Amino acid sequence: MYRAPVEEIAFALKHVAGLKAALDAGSFGDLGEDLVDAILGEAGRFATDEVAPLHEVGDKAGARLKDAAVTMPPGWKEAYRHWIEGGWNGLNGPEEFGGQGLPTMLGVATLEMWNSASMAFGLGPTLTMGAVEALDKHASEDLKAAYLEKLVSGEWMGTMNLTEPQAGSDLAALRTRAERAGDGSYRIFGQKIFITYGEHDLTGNIVHLVLARLPDAPAGTRGISLFLVPKYLLDDDGRPGARNDVFCSGLEEKLGIHASPTCTMIYGDGFAKDREPGAVGWLIGEEHRGLACMFTMMNNARLAVGMQGVAVAEAAFQKALAYANDRRQGKASGYSGEGMAPIVHHPDVQRNLLTMKALTQSARAIAYSCAHAIDMASVSEGTAKAHWQDRANLLTPVAKAFATDVGVDVASLGVQVHGGMGFIEETGAARLLRDARIAPIYEGTNGIQAIDLVTRKLPLGNGDHVFDYVGELDAVANAVAALNSDDYGRSAICLEQALDDLQQTTRFLQKLLEDGRSDDALAGATPYLRLFALAAGGAYLARAALAEGDAGRIALCRFFAENLLGETAALKDRVTGGAASLREAAKALVSA
Amino acid sequence: MYRAPVEEIAFALKHVAGLKAALDAGSFGDLGEDLVDAILGEAGRFATDEVAPLHEVGDKAGARLKDAAVTMPPGWKEAYRHWIEGGWNGLNGPEEFGGQGLPTMLGVATLEMWNSASMAFGLGPTLTMGAVEALDKHASEDLKAAYLEKLVSGEWMGTMNLTEPQAGSDLAALRTRAERAGDGSYRIFGQKIFITYGEHDLTGNIVHLVLARLPDAPAGTRGISLFLVPKYLLDDDGRPGARNDVFCSGLEEKLGIHASPTCTMIYGDGFAKDREPGAVGWLIGEEHRGLACMFTMMNNARLAVGMQGVAVAEAAFQKALAYANDRRQGKASGYSGEGMAPIVHHPDVQRNLLTMKALTQSARAIAYSCAHAIDMASVSEGTAKAHWQDRANLLTPVAKAFATDVGVDVASLGVQVHGGMGFIEETGAARLLRDARIAPIYEGTNGIQAIDLVTRKLPLGNGDHVFDYVGELDAVANAVAALNSDDYGRSAICLEQALDDLQQTTRFLQKLLEDGRSDDALAGATPYLRLFALAAGGAYLARAALAEGDAGRIALCRFFAENLLGETAALKDRVTGGAASLREAAKALVSA
Repeated sequence: MYRAPVEEIAFALKHVAGLKAALDAGSFGDLGEDLVDAILGEAGRFATDEVAPLHEVGDKAGARLKDAAVTMPPGWKEAYRHWIEGGWNGLNGPEEFGGQGLPTMLGVATLEMWNSASMAFGLGPTLTMGAVEALDKHASEDLKAAYLEKLVSGEWMGTMNLTEPQAGSDLAALRTRAERAGDGSYRIFGQKIFITYGEHDLTGNIVHLVLARLPDAPAGTRGISLFLVPKYLLDDDGRPGARNDVFCSGLEEKLGIHASPTCTMIYGDGFAKDREPGAVGWLIGEEHRGLACMFTMMNNARLAVGMQGVAVAEAAFQKALAYANDRRQGKASGYSGEGMAPIVHHPDVQRNLLTMKALTQSARAIAYSCAHAIDMASVSEGTAKAHWQDRANLLTPVAKAFATDVGVDVASLGVQVHGGMGFIEETGAARLLRDARIAPIYEGTNGIQAIDLVTRKLPLGNGDHVFDYVGELDAVANAVAALNSDDYGRSAICLEQALDDLQQTTRFLQKLLEDGRSDDALAGATPYLRLFALAAGGAYLARAALAEGDAGRIALCRFFAENLLGETAALKDRVTGGAASLREAAKALVSA
Repeated sequence: MYRAPVEEIAFALKHVAGLKAALDAGSFGDLGEDLVDAILGEAGRFATDEVAPLHEVGDKAGARLKDAAVTMPPGWKEAYRHWIEGGWNGLNGPEEFGGQGLPTMLGVATLEMWNSASMAFGLGPTLTMGAVEALDKHASEDLKAAYLEKLVSGEWMGTMNLTEPQAGSDLAALRTRAERAGDGSYRIFGQKIFITYGEHDLTGNIVHLVLARLPDAPAGTRGISLFLVPKYLLDDDGRPGARNDVFCSGLEEKLGIHASPTCTMIYGDGFAKDREPGAVGWLIGEEHRGLACMFTMMNNARLAVGMQGVAVAEAAFQKALAYANDRRQGKASGYSGEGMAPIVHHPDVQRNLLTMKALTQSARAIAYSCAHAIDMASVSEGTAKAHWQDRANLLTPVAKAFATDVGVDVASLGVQVHGGMGFIEETGAARLLRDARIAPIYEGTNGIQAIDLVTRKLPLGNGDHVFDYVGELDAVANAVAALNSDDYGRSAICLEQALDDLQQTTRFLQKLLEDGRSDDALAGATPYLRLFALAAGGAYLARAALAEGDAGRIALCRFFAENLLGETAALKDRVTGGAASLREAAKALVSA
């Protein structure tokens, strides 16, 4: 079973992603290392002892729908109650509404733990915090006063209602309509699908954030508005009262995260029979400007999904490592004990385990660095703020896509390390793979992330910001080179080569965009994102090794550099030389 | 739903893997292209119309155990009956026992179709054919007379009983015991796990091939004997009579292939209460020489599992391609029609689909080439026979491991192309991923295959055979270069580079083995196998392109060369420069 790697997480936060420097500089007021360690330790205990046991029962029992009501698996309601009582939901929440206002880095680190313990459990509060953020930034004071405190505490949960059958990646196609009721409120009509935690029995109310179109809305994405639609309308005392006309009409049967209810939501179909049809909602922000509001929560949700990738990878690595130390088969030269050797002594198994470990740590470093940038932006002013905001924007798609790909790959390697037992559900290795597989898809597929990186993030700062970042990574490579230590093997050379590949492909793609050859740029987006992430991940592992000179970290840095970084050359070829053949070969894909 | 790609399969057999030349040379007697085409067409019809509909119901209902009896999903018994009536089980079977004695290439091609339609369906007969082969080569005339005809026809099915809880990859550890009964028969006692199709209701008898130790057996793998243990003992007329003391005590709950019963089998526990305990069995081959007999069937089973990888990849590609032509989202510059573009027009989706297509075709070419070598060995004499036998031995681990990795990767990409729908079980994309995940594990994990390739196959022919093979691939690259055609882009250069990488790493590993540095060789085995397969796959796609000069095949060859072959350089680095860092970093993996 998962045990939260509290020390590793604390190390990555402080020494790789920059938390220690920020604390020392007083960026977060009087927050100090002691409190950070205490919070991480307590979260680790809770995740290990109280959340991890929910995983198997959640997978087996799943969320169940009956008469438009969803029942969560046994024990989940109690655990959630206990979790919010611990104040975990409000960790990053605004202090004005009862939150603790702690840095995003801590929120992201604890999020990793909840998701490692049970991704279906960690997912719900992620949506709530997204709703909190959107409301805090864009909603009227009345709405904030009515809803935020309960959402921050976790007594109520929030949802994001974007997807419709014809509108997934392309939100311009959405059709859910909103009508002005004349009293300042609106009536919402339509169907939303794939709504995570759209209905459940964990909380006394559920606050839906819903994208819809007003009758006079322009076509496309500039005609979408965002509404708050509660499951229960609030009575005069602000308590959940009458049932609103929004209901769950179906749950999806999914490959994984069975305990997370994925709902089809029907708005305004007259289910609440004592009133006129129409789900009662309130506008968030301005009319027709809903997408901008939604993007506020989507960006952070993307980082949160990236954390799910890290989280599942960590859980899969722990499980595979424990199995490899326990399971004995055959002989191994490195094992001098009695009988068959634990399979961890076989070099091929070691390669799988080290690949899992190195990818997990590199993905974690990227994601935490993104969180660090978000924190620095929030405490900075002027050009510094803009710099950190750009940094967060640059790293968000990388953190989301790379970490979730790593989640799938590491979980799959974890199955492989278990041999035949990996295919048996009882073992739990396959469950992690099933859970992990959604993360590259939702909150914008990884293809969308790659396109976002290339078309929207490479131009940041007139195209210079990305080179600022690469320069920082280069400094790490230079520091390794300057050590001239045999322990690092060829790490510095491999890193410098990978960063050179990153620079060249970055310039190549920027040039393509300038020249209006966007299709060729799009064709290279996915390999580019992976190249970016590998080069960054290698540099972060080097930074970890340099921080304290620990032999294990140096060895892992070297393993990554000498075994995994070589891929960047192939990825560069794919980006810079692959588009023409792709275009030719793709002709055969299109149906007549 | 899957439609058997009969023309593509026929093309790959004839023009890539060598069937046409063999037919033209009369290697298979009067077998001609017409009959080959007719067989493939009829198999395609059966797979498409009668097997494919079994997939979903098989997955959902699964095989069910009650009172030691296993019930197959609805419709499976009838379909299997129809399938054996069509003569499909005996396609490659020995003519002496009612088989059609057709080449392995045809067997493998039809096997692909059954497995694409439903991997759980295709799996059972694979075991039966393995049992047929082991009996045909090693059993006494009496045993052959009693069992082979029914196994060849498929009226009875066969199983392979190797694995025990403590003995998976390491068969030396197995404990099932056999005692001489004094009448020429034996009594078997013990427990076997993960026995595929160990119990079911498809056939009137089940013939288990069981590895066990005699009381006076030497320790290790040289003390293992192979026994035939029927579910029902045969009466004087050769019909199934008394129940033997072998029973299924449990079914595994698995990630995929739910319709394939994975049984725990108990031998000799006294379940058949009317007799003394002990499962009645008969020796196959000589005492203590059972592993050699089992290897006969394991080699071909490994190729068959490789075909499962190809098969699932093909099914996943078809499904994703159909979805991408149907699903509309956003705008694409290549699409001039009304409204949103089918996603097949988006370059990033095209990259996923082309990667799926190219990997599938390359894996198919390798597997069919392995089958071709098996066929040529069986019709050749003297040095030619030895040559082809070496070739089959060389390619078997590559076909098994690469194709099954491709199966998982392509099925996972297939899920991704479907976006959110891919995670919903109803879509069927996730089912293919779940099924595919076992293939890299069973019949020897892919790590074991890589070790087999490096330690047992590279030394073939005094280390020269592998270079004969690379030389043949080089000739293909040279032919592309000689064309000097723009249509091939940089294909020739990329191919030559990949083959050079293959040569260098091959020599490097051979040298390591000569120097007794086997741990370093083992550390590089898995990346070496992939390098081998990519270089070979690239050459086979080039051979396909050269065969008829088809523009689509040329474009796919070029896509593979310019987008996927670049990985070989990174793999070479991993093999030649990765072991030292692996050894260092692995120290942290071993528990105190």
